[in-house]
Amino acid sequence: MPEKVEALFSTTAMDNVFSHEAHVRGILAFEAALARAEARAGIIPQDAAHMIEESCKVELFDVAAIYQEAKIAGTPAIPVIRMLTAHLKGDAKRFVHWGATSQDAIDTAMMLQARGGIDLLMQGMLDVCDECAKLAEQYRETVMAGRTLLQQAVPITFGLKAARWLSMAVRQVHELHERRKHSLAVQLGGAAGTLAALGEHGTQVMDLLADELGLPAPELPWHSERDRVAEIAGTLGIVAGAMAKVASDVALLMQTEVGEVTEGTVAGKGGSSAMPQKHNPVDATFAIASARMALGEVPLILAGMMQEHERGVGGWQAEWEALPGLFRYTSGAVEHVKEMVSGLVINHDRMSENLGATQGLIMAEALTMALAPHTGRTEAQRIVKSLCDRAIELGMHLRQVAQEDRDVSGFLKLEEIDRVFDPASYLGSTNVFIERALEAYREASTLEDGI
Amino acid sequence: MPEKVEALFSTTAMDNVFSHEAHVRGILAFEAALARAEARAGIIPQDAAHMIEESCKVELFDVAAIYQEAKIAGTPAIPVIRMLTAHLKGDAKRFVHWGATSQDAIDTAMMLQARGGIDLLMQGMLDVCDECAKLAEQYRETVMAGRTLLQQAVPITFGLKAARWLSMAVRQVHELHERRKHSLAVQLGGAAGTLAALGEHGTQVMDLLADELGLPAPELPWHSERDRVAEIAGTLGIVAGAMAKVASDVALLMQTEVGEVTEGTVAGKGGSSAMPQKHNPVDATFAIASARMALGEVPLILAGMMQEHERGVGGWQAEWEALPGLFRYTSGAVEHVKEMVSGLVINHDRMSENLGATQGLIMAEALTMALAPHTGRTEAQRIVKSLCDRAIELGMHLRQVAQEDRDVSGFLKLEEIDRVFDPASYLGSTNVFIERALEAYREASTLEDGI
Amino acid sequence: MPEKVEALFSTTAMDNVFSHEAHVRGILAFEAALARAEARAGIIPQDAAHMIEESCKVELFDVAAIYQEAKIAGTPAIPVIRMLTAHLKGDAKRFVHWGATSQDAIDTAMMLQARGGIDLLMQGMLDVCDECAKLAEQYRETVMAGRTLLQQAVPITFGLKAARWLSMAVRQVHELHERRKHSLAVQLGGAAGTLAALGEHGTQVMDLLADELGLPAPELPWHSERDRVAEIAGTLGIVAGAMAKVASDVALLMQTEVGEVTEGTVAGKGGSSAMPQKHNPVDATFAIASARMALGEVPLILAGMMQEHERGVGGWQAEWEALPGLFRYTSGAVEHVKEMVSGLVINHDRMSENLGATQGLIMAEALTMALAPHTGRTEAQRIVKSLCDRAIELGMHLRQVAQEDRDVSGFLKLEEIDRVFDPASYLGSTNVFIERALEAYREASTLEDGI
Amino acid sequence: MPEKVEALFSTTAMDNVFSHEAHVRGILAFEAALARAEARAGIIPQDAAHMIEESCKVELFDVAAIYQEAKIAGTPAIPVIRMLTAHLKGDAKRFVHWGATSQDAIDTAMMLQARGGIDLLMQGMLDVCDECAKLAEQYRETVMAGRTLLQQAVPITFGLKAARWLSMAVRQVHELHERRKHSLAVQLGGAAGTLAALGEHGTQVMDLLADELGLPAPELPWHSERDRVAEIAGTLGIVAGAMAKVASDVALLMQTEVGEVTEGTVAGKGGSSAMPQKHNPVDATFAIASARMALGEVPLILAGMMQEHERGVGGWQAEWEALPGLFRYTSGAVEHVKEMVSGLVINHDRMSENLGATQGLIMAEALTMALAPHTGRTEAQRIVKSLCDRAIELGMHLRQVAQEDRDVSGFLKLEEIDRVFDPASYLGSTNVFIERALEAYREASTLEDGI
Repeated sequence: MPEKVEALFSTTAMDNVFSHEAHVRGILAFEAALARAEARAGIIPQDAAHMIEESCKVELFDVAAIYQEAKIAGTPAIPVIRMLTAHLKGDAKRFVHWGATSQDAIDTAMMLQARGGIDLLMQGMLDVCDECAKLAEQYRETVMAGRTLLQQAVPITFGLKAARWLSMAVRQVHELHERRKHSLAVQLGGAAGTLAALGEHGTQVMDLLADELGLPAPELPWHSERDRVAEIAGTLGIVAGAMAKVASDVALLMQTEVGEVTEGTVAGKGGSSAMPQKHNPVDATFAIASARMALGEVPLILAGMMQEHERGVGGWQAEWEALPGLFRYTSGAVEHVKEMVSGLVINHDRMSENLGATQGLIMAEALTMALAPHTGRTEAQRIVKSLCDRAIELGMHLRQVAQEDRDVSGFLKLEEIDRVFDPASYLGSTNVFIERALEAYREASTLEDGI
Repeated sequence: MPEKVEALFSTTAMDNVFSHEAHVRGILAFEAALARAEARAGIIPQDAAHMIEESCKVELFDVAAIYQEAKIAGTPAIPVIRMLTAHLKGDAKRFVHWGATSQDAIDTAMMLQARGGIDLLMQGMLDVCDECAKLAEQYRETVMAGRTLLQQAVPITFGLKAARWLSMAVRQVHELHERRKHSLAVQLGGAAGTLAALGEHGTQVMDLLADELGLPAPELPWHSERDRVAEIAGTLGIVAGAMAKVASDVALLMQTEVGEVTEGTVAGKGGSSAMPQKHNPVDATFAIASARMALGEVPLILAGMMQEHERGVGGWQAEWEALPGLFRYTSGAVEHVKEMVSGLVINHDRMSENLGATQGLIMAEALTMALAPHTGRTEAQRIVKSLCDRAIELGMHLRQVAQEDRDVSGFLKLEEIDRVFDPASYLGSTNVFIERALEAYREASTLEDGI
Repeated sequence: MPEKVEALFSTTAMDNVFSHEAHVRGILAFEAALARAEARAGIIPQDAAHMIEESCKVELFDVAAIYQEAKIAGTPAIPVIRMLTAHLKGDAKRFVHWGATSQDAIDTAMMLQARGGIDLLMQGMLDVCDECAKLAEQYRETVMAGRTLLQQAVPITFGLKAARWLSMAVRQVHELHERRKHSLAVQLGGAAGTLAALGEHGTQVMDLLADELGLPAPELPWHSERDRVAEIAGTLGIVAGAMAKVASDVALLMQTEVGEVTEGTVAGKGGSSAMPQKHNPVDATFAIASARMALGEVPLILAGMMQEHERGVGGWQAEWEALPGLFRYTSGAVEHVKEMVSGLVINHDRMSENLGATQGLIMAEALTMALAPHTGRTEAQRIVKSLCDRAIELGMHLRQVAQEDRDVSGFLKLEEIDRVFDPASYLGSTNVFIERALEAYREASTLEDGI
Repeated sequence: MPEKVEALFSTTAMDNVFSHEAHVRGILAFEAALARAEARAGIIPQDAAHMIEESCKVELFDVAAIYQEAKIAGTPAIPVIRMLTAHLKGDAKRFVHWGATSQDAIDTAMMLQARGGIDLLMQGMLDVCDECAKLAEQYRETVMAGRTLLQQAVPITFGLKAARWLSMAVRQVHELHERRKHSLAVQLGGAAGTLAALGEHGTQVMDLLADELGLPAPELPWHSERDRVAEIAGTLGIVAGAMAKVASDVALLMQTEVGEVTEGTVAGKGGSSAMPQKHNPVDATFAIASARMALGEVPLILAGMMQEHERGVGGWQAEWEALPGLFRYTSGAVEHVKEMVSGLVINHDRMSENLGATQGLIMAEALTMALAPHTGRTEAQRIVKSLCDRAIELGMHLRQVAQEDRDVSGFLKLEEIDRVFDPASYLGSTNVFIERALEAYREASTLEDGI
């Protein structure tokens, strides 16, 4: 059986939720619950249901053989049902998979796995939130350069950056929670979605099955209406995209010439086979790579919605591979970001140095806004633009150029200009924003209990 | 200015919402609302705000020139603000764009356009729902072959197929509604997301701006946290995917050899330049093509979430093109499906003929389930499989083979077998499912008022 | 170590080429060849090179441990080199990985794997070609309905359909061959692509390394210029897309209502857990699903070209997962198509029946072209369109309607009209096209020897 | 008619090649050439061909009306042919579009447009090559930090970086050239690819048509075998990806903290609506955004290869939108990179400063390789790693730490250590690589004449 580089782009926990074995376990969970539900509805005997349930243990099955046979049968459910029937004796044999179709078992198994996967991702994202919240608190007042289009813009604090990460992560925890509540569903439609084989009892069995498995019952079977799966996929893609944004920020801040943060140092981490001085981003790198891989699965699932009639030819089967991949890669992205932010080392000195590196140019907007009440914003911007040009040309600090300028000194006193050039004085709503992010985080933390 | 084949893959209404001119109108709406909000907060004079608002009329601007200049400036907001300032006199000139940055204007404009776009899509989808609901009602009992993996499976009704389309469309109307309520937001962060230029008044102005424009206020500015945009994109992609599924079903049902439905005939529609007999699917074809195009935009927006620091280099700007494209193509898919389902001609005779074409094989599961209480499901399936093989070999109707078979006649009387072969008797929960879909539709219809 | 559903969407042979172990084997092949090359260049002692080569055996390494360590180190090459050095004694220890960087080893290993993968794909595609060529020959004159936009259009032969598949497959064999010759390359650049650690000997060692491994030497190291990888990806995507087209044709022809071909029957193949009569497409289904998965990897690799400076952060690492995935899924698509076409059962009778199903409408263009010399093409089309409408309305055969029509009988004799309605007489260049496809196939078959 | 932000993400020249009008012009070019070819083959009268040709002038057609009608007809070819026939008198009327189908006209028109598009891209890429070649020559010896995973690694020269861009661009010029020669083709198959309406003359007319239009003749019609289109798409995607890599390098080098290059300054370029000091990357930003958009079209075209039977339902029609988009966006990426590199300002001083910023750490590999002949590579790396740690801890220059270290001084003299720390002495094959890239460029430049 082939192996993959999952250690690097996934987590062991998620690999376990989406292993072959776990899928067979899910199919068996469906068959057991179906039997119980049908017994409760009086369609099959209690005894038979009990015996079926007893045999629905993955340990009794040869997973490799199931997939071998699936290649001929077209689905893994067919060999599972064949083997399950073979395990059973007497009456029970007669009632296996009663009224259901392969897709009912496979889709329900997949939904059980998706529930497990969403729980892992919610937990992982809440851990990411915890770490970001700590950073937002701790570095609330640690002033650094804000950067737009990769150019220094105006001062921010590292706490605000972490608060923005936090706020995005919190929103995606809510989205995951929504998906868990509203996009999961059992599948039970029988051969072509009419539940004909269950006669009058169709919707009753569907509801009991949902009850047995703790999954929502859908209004209708959804064999070829895959919007639920696509909704889950969309949300996971956004989680992955959010992680890529955080990891990208860290990789950029770790650049030799910026040097404002470093990934925590474990012996050997981020070394190079050629260069002894290197301290490479490792978790940021793998987080970005994992997120890219996750994002690659999303369009497959969305494009796969175009499924034929009552069961798809190809689009449905691609989900078997794409959805597990999406969960795995997303978990890799979340895990690497968690590792990355939890060990992040902040370099205050470099933040200060970088803030000062442009000789006051980063405070140009502050100077503009100080002048604007006197001159209007446009005129102020014109004046400050010319002061900036002069400062660059003469290699002088913008403050000094401003203080020596007649236009400016007509409106602002020297000490007012001095104050303008204190980055900590030009942070606007930074603190309020951090507080808002923390508040949203505290509310979201309670979601965990609801899982 | 270049033109595109929008007539075919979009709608004029959506093209208008996402035209250059509409974007400039949105930027101006932002500038006017910002001025009003700042006047309400006491930051700029009421007079200035009034004068700014007066000049924020798209008719006063040369849209082509704005985009010409944007190529140098890097954003269309910069020339808009320059031109707006030039229009103004006296004090008002001083207070244009006070405390904001280009991205504030552009993102807010985009959100206003997105709101308009979502409203159009909700309306379009509700229209699609109306038509599907009519089909579900009208053809509730019109029996046809259910098809899985493109093989005849068991009977369904055309009403059920339409109900499944309806149910999926209704769910996506809800998702659109959620996006409208929760994923839209004004953007106001100033140069790097601190609102420093507004001093203490940052969040107050943000809230007033939101109030002015009727858009939600976000907790924090979201210059480089693009999850909201990605959420909208994900939902539109799912809407497009849903439309592709419906259109694909119709294209398959229209096949010469199936012939169960036809697109409504307008003179010249679906003709051929070579073949006079052709009646091609046109709306189904354009719906699929539009949906594919829409789906192509989604990964661009999701992958674009990896934006640098406080404003992105490339990822953000690609949204300017991808999001309008996504709305346009999705509207094309919805519109073509609406046209398609509203004129759909149903061919009962072909449905009946096709049901009968396999000489009873389509009722094989029904026969199995009739035998199963006597023999168990597995044994019944074995028996019926061999009857099917015999029927195919002998070119006989499965009913006759069953009636002549000793195994079967030991358990079922001739008239019982007769009844098994009536497709209308083997529809299980079909009616309940249709009713559930209609019920969900009736609830969703009230959403329209909430827009 | 996690497992995946590769059995269904890949081949064992390709899984082996792209296993963890195979990658480590490739890294070791690089290290051994580098040592030999450097010994030939006189940079390291022959003895050391020999000892290094002796230790570069994958059996001596713990693959799982390598990937465990890679998670910290950032690349699998670092632990491989560490372990390799630990295996060695004395002088040899000193010269391991001399002058190279991790990426040199990993990229070269990947290129060796890609070469193996391309060879498998070429072989698989040539097998597909063999089967399609047989079909093209055998069914050269087997007339069937040509279908455009899923509507019957004019007659073709099944041989022509197979010839079109063949022609496309042959073109992609050539593309694979081109990629094998021009897109593969060793990687050797040292720390940042200057080969500084090799002093004056850089390009000499690169050329010797290429010679040792039988891979082309590039002009320059290509650490972050990934166009070669993207070229391979593009071609594999097109191969996958081509397979999807063939599989889609078969799935459509297998529809119950069309029934013109069937996948070969192996016991249990394409059965259903609910419906005993079903004969589902299995290879077509898995071919489509595999192709979709393959197509999902292509944009990841293309988008990953945007790599930072001299080595990428994320884009490069995603290739480690995406490229193996792409080879695996493409091999799955090719393999399933090979299985599908090699066992394909052709149903002449259904082809004839379907041709006749429209009562001559499929010959409408033929009738038009028979009239056109007399009336002009446009007028002929108008006449025949009205004859078609009449035939449909009256439920008559188009021939009869034509023969009874005065407009037509003014130009064509009854027997001429009779002849028009013989599908076999209206095949134009069909035979020439089949011959051309076979000719191109025969030429391409010689490529195999060149591998 | 809707407008788009093409000014920003495309070029006017490419917009013109892919306008509605240009497509109609292409359809008319097909019709005229078909008539001429058929006259040469003796199928239609010379006079008729001449009259048809005379009327195939786009100025005579109402393009907007054509697309209006296309929405009903399903293709723009149908109204074009109708209007063309209406323009004509007498005999000529009879022979319009003789034996062809709409797709023949549309695909051939698209191929003519693609040829025009490839020529523009080749010209643009050769211009990019010219600029990169100048940079490679001019800055051949301008030493700067090489950076891997965004960390300073070892020295390179800016000339080498430009040579790598050049080398990749040159390879893609060759690929474009290959596509121009081998992936273009006329389309002529008639109703379903048999050319039945042309009787015996099918392939003769196809060859004459190809000759008339200067496009290659394919072996077979390729109505639903879209590998040629996919090949073009793959290559354009790689061109776009290559441009994104170059633009990304520039955006990263322009960072305030790096400051090694700047986009040329045009008045107002890269300014900010908030911050007067900003000098944002504009062309790099639009190049990245355009490339991302281009890359989004590629999977649409590849996935669209799965077309049904003899003409696709949706996949083909999506090409009408995706292929023009791909050409447009790719041209935008190429154009912005051309602008960017042609005006690039190099800041030698910052390059030197950044090289020195780590106090010699960037020379750690050089020191290792100087020690390695004495100690072996692994031991040398261990020693230098500990020297680096010490240098960082003590805030000292690595050279000084090395010179004071007993381990090192046992092997290397002080002046040898001094030499190790001269970046210009550790450039390995840099010059050879630059020379190779220039050589390949000089060869490729001659391709231009072959267009």
